[in-house]
Amino acid sequence: MKATIERATLLKSLSHVQSVVERRNTIPILSNVLLEASADGTIRLMATDLDLQIVESVEAAIDQPGATTVSAHTLFDIARKLPEGSQVELAAADGKMQINAGRARFNLSTLPRDDFPVIAEGELPTKFELPAQTLRQIIDKTRFAISTEETRYYLNGIFLHVSDEAQPVLKAAATDGHRLARVTVARPDGAEGMPDVIVPRKCVGELRKLLDEVDGSVEVSLSATKIRFGLGSAVLTSKLIDGTFPDYSRVIPTGNDKMLKIDPRSFEEGVDRVATIATEKTRAVKMALERDKITLSVTSPENGTAAEEVPGDYVSEGFEIGFNARYLLDILGQIEGDTVEVHLADAAAPTLIRENDKSPALYVLMPMRV
Amino acid sequence: MKATIERATLLKSLSHVQSVVERRNTIPILSNVLLEASADGTIRLMATDLDLQIVESVEAAIDQPGATTVSAHTLFDIARKLPEGSQVELAAADGKMQINAGRARFNLSTLPRDDFPVIAEGELPTKFELPAQTLRQIIDKTRFAISTEETRYYLNGIFLHVSDEAQPVLKAAATDGHRLARVTVARPDGAEGMPDVIVPRKCVGELRKLLDEVDGSVEVSLSATKIRFGLGSAVLTSKLIDGTFPDYSRVIPTGNDKMLKIDPRSFEEGVDRVATIATEKTRAVKMALERDKITLSVTSPENGTAAEEVPGDYVSEGFEIGFNARYLLDILGQIEGDTVEVHLADAAAPTLIRENDKSPALYVLMPMRV
Repeated sequence: MKATIERATLLKSLSHVQSVVERRNTIPILSNVLLEASADGTIRLMATDLDLQIVESVEAAIDQPGATTVSAHTLFDIARKLPEGSQVELAAADGKMQINAGRARFNLSTLPRDDFPVIAEGELPTKFELPAQTLRQIIDKTRFAISTEETRYYLNGIFLHVSDEAQPVLKAAATDGHRLARVTVARPDGAEGMPDVIVPRKCVGELRKLLDEVDGSVEVSLSATKIRFGLGSAVLTSKLIDGTFPDYSRVIPTGNDKMLKIDPRSFEEGVDRVATIATEKTRAVKMALERDKITLSVTSPENGTAAEEVPGDYVSEGFEIGFNARYLLDILGQIEGDTVEVHLADAAAPTLIRENDKSPALYVLMPMRV
Repeated sequence: MKATIERATLLKSLSHVQSVVERRNTIPILSNVLLEASADGTIRLMATDLDLQIVESVEAAIDQPGATTVSAHTLFDIARKLPEGSQVELAAADGKMQINAGRARFNLSTLPRDDFPVIAEGELPTKFELPAQTLRQIIDKTRFAISTEETRYYLNGIFLHVSDEAQPVLKAAATDGHRLARVTVARPDGAEGMPDVIVPRKCVGELRKLLDEVDGSVEVSLSATKIRFGLGSAVLTSKLIDGTFPDYSRVIPTGNDKMLKIDPRSFEEGVDRVATIATEKTRAVKMALERDKITLSVTSPENGTAAEEVPGDYVSEGFEIGFNARYLLDILGQIEGDTVEVHLADAAAPTLIRENDKSPALYVLMPMRV
């Protein structure tokens, strides 16, 4: 192959694909990016970790079509350091790739393109479109709750499923057993009858990065085992987590009869402040609810005590409840409006948090003993 | 004690003093900051690691003079999270300190002020002033060469000494055995006859941070064992390294007869680019000098090869020499002008680098076999 490409174009695309490549690989070719120069004036860049694959097409001047694979991180580091505005010549032959730009010349060893593993997508019968903005929201409002416990691998992703309620909806949920986040959006055309799927954490992370640069719509195609996201020039394909997501709807409380309405910013800042002295391990913050007055407090054997009163609308019977400050802050950080509803039952029961009964996002938080 | 202080004032001062406090301490009180409220309307904050001590005075409204010590990092974290513009009440009594600001209240455990260790300065007979700008330059142009090898503890700092040459000068030098950096400035009044001293790395680092916020002059006072820097409201006192700095003047080459004049920016960028593929361990870059042409190159068994030609003025006999790319970049990063002089002898001899024969800074770099 022989091609010339603008440094900025190459750099941007490599920044996407190299991020899929793991830093350490026992299979050498997994460290590489596949470069395919076509006579139609494009270079396709592809990277994979065998579970997740990214393909991106960029414009280039192609002198000689062909393909090769080189170290993704090395090529990315080179592209970063090449002079701004330079034209990069890529020429592969005889197990080497020559890279010329300005006065710099690099010669990298390559591995044959035929050895590069490609994820077989198979049939992806479900196809629908989602606005990039909606997909960003779904991810931002749920991903923090994804479990990192490898033994509960079926919780290591975002669960997507459709459901027929008053209206047909698409739901995204994530939980680690301590908190649950769920976003509900109108079911897009084409999603009817789709299988329940669990999208792995790494795919979610890479997708989210790509979404920062996308407006318009994302094409989603999936089967029971694979999912593909089409984002303009980039296509992300991932294996799905082969497991059963628990029936999370059972943990969403419906009978919590004590309601606190509070300014999420004051609440968030108060929790953050009193948590300053919380012990790293538990990070427990106590919430004492009285009529229209919430007192947040932390007691740490090493550091001392902290307390802050936050005004809020509360008319039910007073009681105390404890939460993990980190988990509470994660949720409050996702609330954009001026008020948040906290639906409580008692000090041991799951608590429901949402902006209001119209909001697409809903959170459940398990209390802690304090 | 009882005092009220502006949150911004407290935060700024704590950001300075907490930085001296080590994260882990076997002696509990070393984790604390000493707060001393005086009837004259100031709070003195003091922190120490037994080798380095910082004292800073800030304005406050004092209701009741007194002193106590509390965890420096905890108080700093609290101050960071308090609302902007708030007034912070500090009240210490009965082994506790109460902190009130806005709706937040904290209660921290304290340790008695009498247990707080203070570095005995003793006599500091040498006293002189240096413009903050000069002191910043001295540090920036030498600190990167400070050794981190603990066995060669006498190299773990910046060596300061005076010397009578054509004019009386103050010299600052640092070396790790692979490279040497030296800055020469006019000897300030009062520095005559001062003992040779080695200022430890941590003192250099804290001093440099404080210098970012200082204009005007810094008062330097020293003996053979201690040094004190007076920077407006902050005073930094450090023990000096008890050792003998090697006679570094012997390694500064005087007879290097091959001179390369080169644009430091092109040189730096070229080295940085070819070093992309250098192996992490050696980071060796080869420089092939020919008449008015320098070729930088790196060969890595794993990654491949890289080369770049950089134009430069060179008329002596051609030869090849190798350098550690990191060390070369450290030096070039300190060259501000349009040209840099590289004085070479042969592939095994120390190389002298400086902007020109008028420049206060001078660097010596040992070559590597390549």
